[in-house]
Amino acid sequence: MSKGTLLYAQSGGVTAVINATASAVISTARAKGIKVLAARNGILGALREDLIDTSKETAAAIAALAHTPGGAFGSCRYKLKSLEADRGKYERLLEVLRAHDVCWFLYNGGNDSADTAWKVSQLAKAFDYDLTCIGVPKTIDNDLAVTDTCPGFGSAAKYTAVSVREAALDVAAMAETSTKVFVYEAMGRHAGWLAAAAGLAGQGADDAPHIILLPERAYDEAAFLAKVKQVVERVGYCVVVASEGIQTADGRFVADAGGGTDSFGHTQLGGVASQLAARVKDGLGYKVHWTLPDYLQRSARHLASKTDWEQAQAVGKAAVQFALKGQNAVMPVIVRTSDTPYRWKIEAAPLHKVANHEKKMPAGFIRRDGFGITDKARAYLAPLIKGEAPLPYGSDGLPKYVTLKNVAVKKKLPAFEA
Amino acid sequence: MSKGTLLYAQSGGVTAVINATASAVISTARAKGIKVLAARNGILGALREDLIDTSKETAAAIAALAHTPGGAFGSCRYKLKSLEADRGKYERLLEVLRAHDVCWFLYNGGNDSADTAWKVSQLAKAFDYDLTCIGVPKTIDNDLAVTDTCPGFGSAAKYTAVSVREAALDVAAMAETSTKVFVYEAMGRHAGWLAAAAGLAGQGADDAPHIILLPERAYDEAAFLAKVKQVVERVGYCVVVASEGIQTADGRFVADAGGGTDSFGHTQLGGVASQLAARVKDGLGYKVHWTLPDYLQRSARHLASKTDWEQAQAVGKAAVQFALKGQNAVMPVIVRTSDTPYRWKIEAAPLHKVANHEKKMPAGFIRRDGFGITDKARAYLAPLIKGEAPLPYGSDGLPKYVTLKNVAVKKKLPAFEA
Repeated sequence: MSKGTLLYAQSGGVTAVINATASAVISTARAKGIKVLAARNGILGALREDLIDTSKETAAAIAALAHTPGGAFGSCRYKLKSLEADRGKYERLLEVLRAHDVCWFLYNGGNDSADTAWKVSQLAKAFDYDLTCIGVPKTIDNDLAVTDTCPGFGSAAKYTAVSVREAALDVAAMAETSTKVFVYEAMGRHAGWLAAAAGLAGQGADDAPHIILLPERAYDEAAFLAKVKQVVERVGYCVVVASEGIQTADGRFVADAGGGTDSFGHTQLGGVASQLAARVKDGLGYKVHWTLPDYLQRSARHLASKTDWEQAQAVGKAAVQFALKGQNAVMPVIVRTSDTPYRWKIEAAPLHKVANHEKKMPAGFIRRDGFGITDKARAYLAPLIKGEAPLPYGSDGLPKYVTLKNVAVKKKLPAFEA
Repeated sequence: MSKGTLLYAQSGGVTAVINATASAVISTARAKGIKVLAARNGILGALREDLIDTSKETAAAIAALAHTPGGAFGSCRYKLKSLEADRGKYERLLEVLRAHDVCWFLYNGGNDSADTAWKVSQLAKAFDYDLTCIGVPKTIDNDLAVTDTCPGFGSAAKYTAVSVREAALDVAAMAETSTKVFVYEAMGRHAGWLAAAAGLAGQGADDAPHIILLPERAYDEAAFLAKVKQVVERVGYCVVVASEGIQTADGRFVADAGGGTDSFGHTQLGGVASQLAARVKDGLGYKVHWTLPDYLQRSARHLASKTDWEQAQAVGKAAVQFALKGQNAVMPVIVRTSDTPYRWKIEAAPLHKVANHEKKMPAGFIRRDGFGITDKARAYLAPLIKGEAPLPYGSDGLPKYVTLKNVAVKKKLPAFEA
């Protein structure tokens, strides 16, 4: 008699610790004697019946997964629409799950994925198929509802705070004869959590970052330039951290201002940092440098937060436990029970409460002048970057990241074009 | 009877380990009972008589300096011209040195600084002033002559290799439905050493980085785009690392192609990565992301190479020893005595052999197709990123970087406008 299998899939942008969640899911299930399949390239693999047999991986490889960034089985940007619009796909998904005797489906992603997992759970019920669906939280954007924080965010936040502090020391040393303004572009299209975390890089009023621009506040160029000038005149240099998603009061993304084509008709790719840098150069005449860390900020496992790493593993472990207990359509979320000392626990939250919500920075986290974070924000953010997640390095000076074998499971169904 | 003082100054772009050199200089001199002054903001402080009394710093602070990035006393971009053109400044410099009983002048920088230190030594001789001038090597560009490598380079190289490997894992996981081409911009205006170091991120033919663009080879857009297409079709994605200084065969910087102003008359700031990304998008239609780490790559003490860190301290210690032995107009350089196992020692090289030269990548380090590094380059680069330099973290999850008191020495001379 088959015990049933567990299917795990990763979704959306990967993080420095999503594989730590995968590692915890697999090792927890293994300890219970349960076979774990993984979908290749997220939900696409589930639709195409392109599944990976994780039992082919050694225990050492699964352990090493816990310190390897990226998405070990592949992830994807692919959103299933409503049950009505994409009914064929949802039914195909159930068909694949059934063909591989999947009793537990764990979908590791953001609010879209929570929504998908919820819909699959509803459909399974309608088809009288005994399936337990669990959403497992992940996103560097920290914008999931209900959970106190999202695995992946704390590590990206630590990367941001450390990088801003280090670059600020560089700028401070050279400011008299070189760069006076430095602009750091943080990910966050709708919510400014990562840019806000840069605030942890300094404590005093004159510490970097001197200006944080958040999408929760309208970008006002005149006020921004005036503030830059004031900081440079007082401190000698100015470090600016900007969310990629900042907009003017009339709703235009600052990042899009450049875009378009150059005089040769070539595409110009925009970006908030380069735009702000150009404005500072034009408006104030200061020498300016900027950085766009892009994927480096979400893949920097070498600078992962221990808190984040532990939480990434905890949600993976809890997801399996909830699944085995038949707690359908839930997500393991992080509940903060104390700021100082920082204490947290995992609870099960209904998926529909997480799905399709987007948690922005509360007004009380943003300084009155809009250019920084409050003590309340600091109290929230500070514990999330604490501790250094262990990471083995090889004799070559590089972290020892693992590449899995990712052996495909034999297909049982006809092909399907997803 | 005064024993004389030692003056130390930092010059040019700072690195993750230039303060490790400073720490070694100060602690070595202290152990010999010699007073160390530091010039604030490099040579500018020496000209302005804006000197710092390092004896006001605790032993703990000087020890912590060894793991703090940036330039603790300030650095500057300020090049003294020829003895004829800037005679007044050189004489002022000697006047300041004499006023503070400076017997040993240590100038920590690149080839410009080696040149300045050499000129000062010649002038002192002409004025019959007993001064020993030492150039101390530093630059992430790795372009100094004579020395096998430059303190600062190994750490930036490690940052580059680790960051490229991590970002590649991210891109690989998402490539099917998202970004297929990722471009990383490395510092290096004339020499491609840092971009080359990215080659250490992978071993096999299909490992990232798949393409490295070096300023030592002309940029050929058609060949580049053809190679990107070939890699994406074979591997599924393509990671490109480009030196900021790559040029077309007719000598135009690729980074300057954008520049100019946008349709609003606003300045557009260029950059190689954004230019290449736009070409890939226009020419091949792939989704593309790019990163410009900028100062992050030279200030990332959190990812410093132990080899580099040890060498940074060794040149500082040797500089003091050479100075005290009266070895005038020399630079402590790193001599490699073996690749495997990697062995090195410090020797004294005449400053004039280092001054004003620029060491590019040898032709034998660049692959025949121009898109990667050879095994010879690998053998040279590999030891430089080995080992992880120790770094204490605070309970706040941030590295414990020190800020010195930088107490000014009382001025003895009239003001001087440098």
